Amino acid sequence: MAKKAKTAINPTREENYPQWYQEVIKAADLAENSDVRGCMVIKPWGYTIWENIQKNLDEMFKDTGHVNAYFPLFIPKSFFEKEAEHVDGFAKECAVVTHTRLEDDLNGGLRPAGKLTEELIVRPTSETIIGASFSKWVESYRDLPLLINQWANVVRWEMRTRLFLRTTEFLWQEGHTVHATREEAEEETKKMLNVYADFASEYLAIPVIKGEKTASERFPGALQTFSIEAMMQDKKALQAGTSHFLGQNFAKASNIKYQSKEGIEKYAWTTSWGVSTRLIGALIMAHSDDDGLIIPPKIAPAHVVIIPIYKNEEQEKLVKEYISDLENEIKKLRFDEKKIRVIVDDRDIRGGDKVWGWIKKGVPIRLEVGPRDVENSSLFMGRRDKAPKDKGGIVFNKFIETLPEILQEIQDNIYQKALSFQKENTVNIDTKDEFYKFFTPNNKENPEIHGGFANSHWCGNPECEENIKNDLKVTIRNIPEDAKQEIGKCIYCGAKSEKRVIFSKSY
Amino acid sequence: MAKKAKTAINPTREENYPQWYQEVIKAADLAENSDVRGCMVIKPWGYTIWENIQKNLDEMFKDTGHVNAYFPLFIPKSFFEKEAEHVDGFAKECAVVTHTRLEDDLNGGLRPAGKLTEELIVRPTSETIIGASFSKWVESYRDLPLLINQWANVVRWEMRTRLFLRTTEFLWQEGHTVHATREEAEEETKKMLNVYADFASEYLAIPVIKGEKTASERFPGALQTFSIEAMMQDKKALQAGTSHFLGQNFAKASNIKYQSKEGIEKYAWTTSWGVSTRLIGALIMAHSDDDGLIIPPKIAPAHVVIIPIYKNEEQEKLVKEYISDLENEIKKLRFDEKKIRVIVDDRDIRGGDKVWGWIKKGVPIRLEVGPRDVENSSLFMGRRDKAPKDKGGIVFNKFIETLPEILQEIQDNIYQKALSFQKENTVNIDTKDEFYKFFTPNNKENPEIHGGFANSHWCGNPECEENIKNDLKVTIRNIPEDAKQEIGKCIYCGAKSEKRVIFSKSY
Repeated sequence: MAKKAKTAINPTREENYPQWYQEVIKAADLAENSDVRGCMVIKPWGYTIWENIQKNLDEMFKDTGHVNAYFPLFIPKSFFEKEAEHVDGFAKECAVVTHTRLEDDLNGGLRPAGKLTEELIVRPTSETIIGASFSKWVESYRDLPLLINQWANVVRWEMRTRLFLRTTEFLWQEGHTVHATREEAEEETKKMLNVYADFASEYLAIPVIKGEKTASERFPGALQTFSIEAMMQDKKALQAGTSHFLGQNFAKASNIKYQSKEGIEKYAWTTSWGVSTRLIGALIMAHSDDDGLIIPPKIAPAHVVIIPIYKNEEQEKLVKEYISDLENEIKKLRFDEKKIRVIVDDRDIRGGDKVWGWIKKGVPIRLEVGPRDVENSSLFMGRRDKAPKDKGGIVFNKFIETLPEILQEIQDNIYQKALSFQKENTVNIDTKDEFYKFFTPNNKENPEIHGGFANSHWCGNPECEENIKNDLKVTIRNIPEDAKQEIGKCIYCGAKSEKRVIFSKSY
Repeated sequence: MAKKAKTAINPTREENYPQWYQEVIKAADLAENSDVRGCMVIKPWGYTIWENIQKNLDEMFKDTGHVNAYFPLFIPKSFFEKEAEHVDGFAKECAVVTHTRLEDDLNGGLRPAGKLTEELIVRPTSETIIGASFSKWVESYRDLPLLINQWANVVRWEMRTRLFLRTTEFLWQEGHTVHATREEAEEETKKMLNVYADFASEYLAIPVIKGEKTASERFPGALQTFSIEAMMQDKKALQAGTSHFLGQNFAKASNIKYQSKEGIEKYAWTTSWGVSTRLIGALIMAHSDDDGLIIPPKIAPAHVVIIPIYKNEEQEKLVKEYISDLENEIKKLRFDEKKIRVIVDDRDIRGGDKVWGWIKKGVPIRLEVGPRDVENSSLFMGRRDKAPKDKGGIVFNKFIETLPEILQEIQDNIYQKALSFQKENTVNIDTKDEFYKFFTPNNKENPEIHGGFANSHWCGNPECEENIKNDLKVTIRNIPEDAKQEIGKCIYCGAKSEKRVIFSKSY
């Protein structure tokens, strides 16, 4: 039997993708399950990725004219009931607060007391509670557009949860905007979809497909839902962000009216859009390898880690002085207009454990510095976008001079790799036979593996969509924005179709 | 009858301080009550102040070695019960989740369903849920200190609420740290109290008194609680931040143990510390005047607002070009290491309404720019730390050159004013008679007004403290850190005392 190649993460992606995912999270110390069913603890390394996502996305929101605000965690049950489709969509998965205190149960324990006359729902999304404020804030056309965003936690009682991908409580942002006309609201919906797509590709280094969801996958209460869809390394799709054109449904439910220039009272048009900590799940699955996490530099908690190597006190002194200079020089540099983030790892553990620890945590650049480097004014550099053994010397000055470029190169490499993978695994398919083969597991040991994204014709009939879903667990991810007008036949029923859509298995 | 001086806020502070507070919030558009009892909506102008508080405080936490993480919103009831004093302290005011979905009540409405076997408490504070994680994270002395912070929302079911000061849901940060020794935990407790005090004086421009709380005012479960206390303009105290030395109480309740260097298993020592959106209440009441909000430049949502003034299209063109240059020059400048934030107000409303609108919102510098300014390369500047009528011309270049200095001067003025007020109204009192007079309303129309802070001797007996509280609604705010050893007599019972403490009415 051939000796198995050693990897830092076991099982590997090939062996068991879902298990590999959990192990990468554990090895990088990103998050863990809590004692509260379905709620995760986001550990510092994972939370710093979220902070970096927030910081950059928030800037993009502000650059497009949005401001942040904060609305109540609780939604009165009656508010929730105002929009019929909306409540249908969320009633089955919401945490309900019924009492406001605990009292002695006369049995050594505590029981709920102070029963509420109207139950409160812990927000699964905030259209109805924010709508109640908006109806007071909007009076005239002068108050429009109203462009608000909220960073918050939300709760959806999920039966089966998975760290970052689907948790009972998660962190997100939800944009909520109000407009005078249908056109402006539609434009906003698209604009924010573009912001998400740009953020995904530029920062997360994840190429995405922008497009409209079919009716069956719409946000409850929306007229149109758009999404960005990313391909994971198991070739499944992950919906990474959504933007909803809500028409006048929520304006009517919440009574958001404005007086037009001509003095006529009209219902406003609203949108909402969101991304969540799920993006961290996307990040992990899009880039990481069998040695652990890979994080694009633009959102990495640290860009550079420096590992001192020495054998005695004399060497320690020399090496630490040298590293201190190095650290100071690095801290003067900027990448992506922000200070370069550097960690010096002087923990009292084995050098090899340090190196592998930081590989598993996905730090883009590792520097090992020993006495010989001090002598030669050099460094030993390893890059996370290359193999662990692919590392070598670089002169101190050269390193400092080119560090921002190296980081940009790593960022680009990670993106290009994901883009190639997406392109290689997206196929135009035109026959039902081929389509069914494409989505039938080709690997008995790992039934999750399938062909990828099928770019195929669909007639627009929800029944065809439903049948495919029942047969293959494959759904239409979206109708790509850039899909060409092209006459073809529905992949399921053969009826006339005018556009290809993206079919895939998904998270 | 003399004509009453016009003020933008009515009633004035003198006339009705609590009502004035509500009116300042309304006029500055900071926040409003929501339809959920006791929960506020933080509007964009108010939320931006919170973002600026967060940004600066977060930097200070990180500079002192802390990292952020995120823990569940929900706490299982049984966790809560682990620390006896703790549960006693919070049981009377917690929101309880008992169900996980809503179902048709067969009556056109919805009723809670999916009853939980164990109720979940919406976190009022997170010692117990974070402790559960820490008990897994800490194994060896090498894992210590563990220095974690969380930015989050918390819920305490309050009977009487007031915007920012006391709301059912509020935003805060809670630091939670674990240490190997008592000394290190005590040091951390003090260090974070100092961070809060520095932040209050440097950023919020609020002088505070650092000191230890008496036993009756301790955090439930803590061995020691320290606070920073600020004086509001009605001479009442506001507790603006607290830092708790928890001893081993929570380590024992949550089983946080570590193995020492010598291989001995020991319970760890923990601390916790927090500030909340209450700081915004402190800010309003410390600085604002009868014309509205005054915000120190370091945390103001905008530093400068520019108001164009013109009468015809020709003038409009000239003025707008000039303003565009002005805006660009301002944006190149930095104050407190951050970009200067500038707003150009080109709304189609009256100039006077704009000026007063920005005064009420507390923007530090207002610039009015008309055709004559374009001719003379000048500006008309008003400062929020001066009277509304106190404004005048300044040359363009001079303004740009000195803007960061002007902002710092405003910051300092606001602080000095608050400091003088605090000093003027803090009095050493040594007789019971004088003490009771000091705290007896001197104004029948406004019973809230009282003497200020009394710096008086206390023997240490909780009964004296309790009696004073019952008689005067006056409490010991804290035992100031810098209180001198000084032999005196307890202001209530006359027994021997070694230190003066701060007595005051409070929020």
